[in-house]
Amino acid sequence: MLRDGIDIVSSAELSRATGISSEQIRKDLAYFGAFGTRGVGYSTDVLAERIRDILGLYAPIPVALVGVGNLGTALVRHNRSQNQMTRITAIFDHDPNKVGLEIAGLTVMSMEQLPTVVREQQIKVAILAVPAEAAEHVADQLEKVGVKAVLNFSQAKINSSMVVHNIDLTVELQTLAYYINPR
Amino acid sequence: MLRDGIDIVSSAELSRATGISSEQIRKDLAYFGAFGTRGVGYSTDVLAERIRDILGLYAPIPVALVGVGNLGTALVRHNRSQNQMTRITAIFDHDPNKVGLEIAGLTVMSMEQLPTVVREQQIKVAILAVPAEAAEHVADQLEKVGVKAVLNFSQAKINSSMVVHNIDLTVELQTLAYYINPR
Repeated sequence: MLRDGIDIVSSAELSRATGISSEQIRKDLAYFGAFGTRGVGYSTDVLAERIRDILGLYAPIPVALVGVGNLGTALVRHNRSQNQMTRITAIFDHDPNKVGLEIAGLTVMSMEQLPTVVREQQIKVAILAVPAEAAEHVADQLEKVGVKAVLNFSQAKINSSMVVHNIDLTVELQTLAYYINPR
Repeated sequence: MLRDGIDIVSSAELSRATGISSEQIRKDLAYFGAFGTRGVGYSTDVLAERIRDILGLYAPIPVALVGVGNLGTALVRHNRSQNQMTRITAIFDHDPNKVGLEIAGLTVMSMEQLPTVVREQQIKVAILAVPAEAAEHVADQLEKVGVKAVLNFSQAKINSSMVVHNIDLTVELQTLAYYINPR
């Protein structure tokens, strides 16, 4: 909205853009302090700044990615091609044939290098793009070296005290199937 | 759970596995008819079958993918390597250099071929893996030929009467950033 030159946004417009009810949006934002104007809406630049504050996006956040298969490689290229606050800065794979390869300016490192690199770069966020069988084990390794939050693209469920967000493409597609069936 | 030999699952266990409250799970499933046992839970095989029914996953659902870049290619390979009810069966790109390439057993087709192929295969679900600038235009083309639901990996917002689910990797990563900041 900032890019499009929109100065003010109502909670109804935010609701249409996000699919979250306007009541919930007002309630959630109010939780972090009142910064909208009743009957008018939110100033987009104030809102963007407050959301940045809430998320703690003050400085670039380094991200590790484990598993440089098709999906992992695509995620690295996609992320590195954009100027983002959350930036993949270290990539790992267990396959010796992949270690040493370059992807979007990063060199694939071995799993043995992971503890040192993650600690040195103070990485707290990681992307898991490994096969389901390997997910739990890799998650353990990440947790041990201080990773706090994981974006999990493997289809395995991770039992961990880390925050884990799952993106399961199969589930996403099957959910869409619901909408195409006559009922 | 079926794979792991689990016969019965409680709404509390489903809640832990999904992050959705057990009240909401009970309410949602009850909406489709009572098939749990109070104080015991749901029979996993009955539950799986009912969910399959609810989603309408009776027969394989063909899916089109537009945009065979890094991410698109990864999605095709990932999807085609699994035996899924929602299966990518047609892939398209506007780049003449990509048309004719083979990916996971599929030949990349041109955007000019899209209307005919989508109609012939009766495709109702599509994946959008094109750059943000192209997203709206491609979505229009898909809608025109009868696509009803779209999984949108571009960062563009799609205005359409189709059902659109967005997967924005940047947003996912920034959301995780929230959890790593001391507060």
